[in-house]
Amino acid sequence: MSRLESFIRRLQAQRACLDHAVGLIRDVPGPVLELGLGNGRTYDHLRERLPQREIYVCDRQVAAHPDCIPPPRFLILGDVRETLPTARARIGDAVGLIHADLGSGDAEANRRQAAELAPLIVGLLRPGGIVVSDQALGAPRLRPLDLPPGVKPGRYFLYSAIEG
Amino acid sequence: MSRLESFIRRLQAQRACLDHAVGLIRDVPGPVLELGLGNGRTYDHLRERLPQREIYVCDRQVAAHPDCIPPPRFLILGDVRETLPTARARIGDAVGLIHADLGSGDAEANRRQAAELAPLIVGLLRPGGIVVSDQALGAPRLRPLDLPPGVKPGRYFLYSAIEG
Repeated sequence: MSRLESFIRRLQAQRACLDHAVGLIRDVPGPVLELGLGNGRTYDHLRERLPQREIYVCDRQVAAHPDCIPPPRFLILGDVRETLPTARARIGDAVGLIHADLGSGDAEANRRQAAELAPLIVGLLRPGGIVVSDQALGAPRLRPLDLPPGVKPGRYFLYSAIEG
Repeated sequence: MSRLESFIRRLQAQRACLDHAVGLIRDVPGPVLELGLGNGRTYDHLRERLPQREIYVCDRQVAAHPDCIPPPRFLILGDVRETLPTARARIGDAVGLIHADLGSGDAEANRRQAAELAPLIVGLLRPGGIVVSDQALGAPRLRPLDLPPGVKPGRYFLYSAIEG
């Protein structure tokens, strides 16, 4: 499969998982947290699908399309492993949806980062809160969910937070 | 439509047009020219679909995934407006397929660049050669072709070269 083909499938999986998660949090209140702004495409998708929600965004720096930059009070800049522990004071611990798209081409670095992030992510979620992630996350309070139709297992990941 | 949505549609259009062009050049010999390597996704797609063809690639610099970098003798580095006029000595003037994906977010700059490139592109093509482009190209020898099903007009462009 060409890289063009595989990239299209990854984006389709991402969109399908985000749209599925939007349905799952219909009755789950709380803000949304986007980990990794990048070019702002998924942030734009989430704010279009969830116009009533506050969407906080963490990234090292802003490199997004000018139309896709969150207002300053929703932007948390720095390494997420450092900003997430303190972000709780701003965001609270009752987040309804977290989308984490922080992986790079380095599989080993991705695994390490996912292991560090999982407990930080869990600490921000309300019970019933949903995580959509490009990496597998392991934490006692995270229950893996079935992927929406058409998304190949391992391409993207979905979890819900159980009572802690 | 969110930027994620619109990006997915653009990539699907790109893939559909490239695959359509591959069918159109079945009986048209000659090398392939990729204008804009970028991350190498469409180069990878073209070499997978056209394993028997020589594929030349022009770009300012190499920023592609290491797996998607053409062998040095097929790589022409520099501003295409400068390299294309001299590339003819290497590539010849009987190219079968050109894919140009050089547009940026600046619509006015894209139009200017397309106007400069159109005659250079035409000069490299054999009659019956195909151009797949992210920008509209105007030149007496370029005849617009119908887009494949599902591709919205204006999203991508297809041309064939007539006798000059």
